Amino acid sequence: MDKITIIGLGLIGGSIGFALKANASDRIYVSGYDKDFDEGRKAEKLKAVDKAHWKLDDALKDAKMVILAVPVLAIRDMMKTISEMLSPGCIVTDTGSTKLEIMKWAQDYLPEEVSFVGGHPMAGKEISGVSAADASLFKNARYAVIPGKGATEGAVNSVIGLVDLLGAKPYFVDAEEHDSYVAAVSHLPIIMSTALVSATSGSPSWREMSKLAATGFRDVSRLASGDPVMNLDISVTNQESLLYWIDRVIEELQEFRQMVGNTGDEKGLEKLGDTFAKAWESREKWLRRFESGDDDEDEDLSRPELPSFGAQMMDMLVGSRLRERYQDVLSSQQERAEERKGRHRRR
Amino acid sequence: MDKITIIGLGLIGGSIGFALKANASDRIYVSGYDKDFDEGRKAEKLKAVDKAHWKLDDALKDAKMVILAVPVLAIRDMMKTISEMLSPGCIVTDTGSTKLEIMKWAQDYLPEEVSFVGGHPMAGKEISGVSAADASLFKNARYAVIPGKGATEGAVNSVIGLVDLLGAKPYFVDAEEHDSYVAAVSHLPIIMSTALVSATSGSPSWREMSKLAATGFRDVSRLASGDPVMNLDISVTNQESLLYWIDRVIEELQEFRQMVGNTGDEKGLEKLGDTFAKAWESREKWLRRFESGDDDEDEDLSRPELPSFGAQMMDMLVGSRLRERYQDVLSSQQERAEERKGRHRRR
Repeated sequence: MDKITIIGLGLIGGSIGFALKANASDRIYVSGYDKDFDEGRKAEKLKAVDKAHWKLDDALKDAKMVILAVPVLAIRDMMKTISEMLSPGCIVTDTGSTKLEIMKWAQDYLPEEVSFVGGHPMAGKEISGVSAADASLFKNARYAVIPGKGATEGAVNSVIGLVDLLGAKPYFVDAEEHDSYVAAVSHLPIIMSTALVSATSGSPSWREMSKLAATGFRDVSRLASGDPVMNLDISVTNQESLLYWIDRVIEELQEFRQMVGNTGDEKGLEKLGDTFAKAWESREKWLRRFESGDDDEDEDLSRPELPSFGAQMMDMLVGSRLRERYQDVLSSQQERAEERKGRHRRR
Repeated sequence: MDKITIIGLGLIGGSIGFALKANASDRIYVSGYDKDFDEGRKAEKLKAVDKAHWKLDDALKDAKMVILAVPVLAIRDMMKTISEMLSPGCIVTDTGSTKLEIMKWAQDYLPEEVSFVGGHPMAGKEISGVSAADASLFKNARYAVIPGKGATEGAVNSVIGLVDLLGAKPYFVDAEEHDSYVAAVSHLPIIMSTALVSATSGSPSWREMSKLAATGFRDVSRLASGDPVMNLDISVTNQESLLYWIDRVIEELQEFRQMVGNTGDEKGLEKLGDTFAKAWESREKWLRRFESGDDDEDEDLSRPELPSFGAQMMDMLVGSRLRERYQDVLSSQQERAEERKGRHRRR
């Protein structure tokens, strides 16, 4: 039996434990450690790990692989702490949300006889703790894999094997790209969710207004319920890319401001309508790829069924509906303007 | 049997039909009309309505109540079209997302012998069409009710009865307040979802980056998959309030920009952490009220179980975790800075 040690038994660490126990309990012994021993005990009780240890060096003893499933900034401290406790040839991996800093820390703090392979499962929940953990959390999810300098081929293959055991799909990317991509599709949404909640809940009318908030608000604001500590760590370790993307979305919202303000004439109306239709199409295409787990779906034109064809059709339909709508809106606005003129004249 | 006519047999109209058939088929006959007769036929086949009519006046004949479940701007045209077809004493209501303009149109276009009571169920899905309709769509949802000038008490009570049959909860509000509230909690999230998709999918790296997009992106971008025609109508008829809220959230994001940029010192770090923690708390409180359906939950201090106490406890815990974190981050930043200095000296 090979021993794998999971450090940090929260949502992610716990879910990895559950998945390993479900899919490889015959060949892998799972040891665990959490700085909050109550969480560790809970994880052991729930059978996310075979044993949760009180002491870190007991948990790490003879481990073939160590998985650091703690918030980003805690990974750094943990690397320093465990560097003396690791067996030579041990493979260390992590699940942190940003990678550039982590790859540097691994080089700075882990001993040379150890292979570090960075990892980032693109899965999560806004709820934390081992009680929310779930063996199927990573099912079909992308799992970014970034081999450290000097990581052996065997180590990289072992981490790919881990990703496979979790039901996820490895995705190779360099640390810099990783951080800039997740800034856009993962960290920016966190900031936007939080900004939505801050802006609305800060209003003097929030108590009344919040009674009308429903599923739309719930979903767009969901990430504001994420762990504030994790969100702070992400913001600190992915600052530059995140700032870039906050600026992009501010520009985008300023354009929306313009467009919503200019719906009085045909051009403005068309521009806003086209923007809604285009975003609608982009998201539908992405969602289809995400749900099918097939990234190349709308690229591969040689396949018999063309999924992009449906999207094009829908686009055309929506396109013509929108064109009709522009006409409706404009003629009714003209009509209203004339009615107003008429009323003024009558006065 | 009283006859109710639903005009517009999409997601909302169809769901109202299903709910009426499920809860009152013994006393209510449901007639329907959709300008796309195929949708009407589908609704009849699925039994969302007793009969879908080809002609509008057949659908409206002898109706005691008429429900306009079409996009906002189509409501205006529909009011003009049906005004001659309504029986005296008929009650007209709608399900439009904005109310100020609609209340004006009702006064301008509906005959005096008819009572108009505006309505807005705070429920929906991003998918449209009667195939997505569902009798339980309105279960426990808020349903804004706004009596028109001259609406009889009987008419208002009938609409409250309808809301009740749908399993929703009536919420009385004036049209102006309604529009400013939904601008914040419903229409602003649509713009933010769309802006997120526009900004990211417009990037040259979108194809690669989108492979790392997961459930967080999916939820925050969900409203970008809403019907572009509906979104355009909302933007046109709720322009002023929407602009106000777009400005608020741009300001909020500019503050985030500042805060993320200033995490190098203790004050900046604390400010960002506090903002995450505060938004986290506001959303948790809102979510609890939303899910329990009890608006006054965290106001009523006389109740034995204090749900707000849990939130306060969590806040305290998160608060102390954040304070620890500030110390960690700052000391590790100082340490890194000193290491860098050390390395420079060694060169």
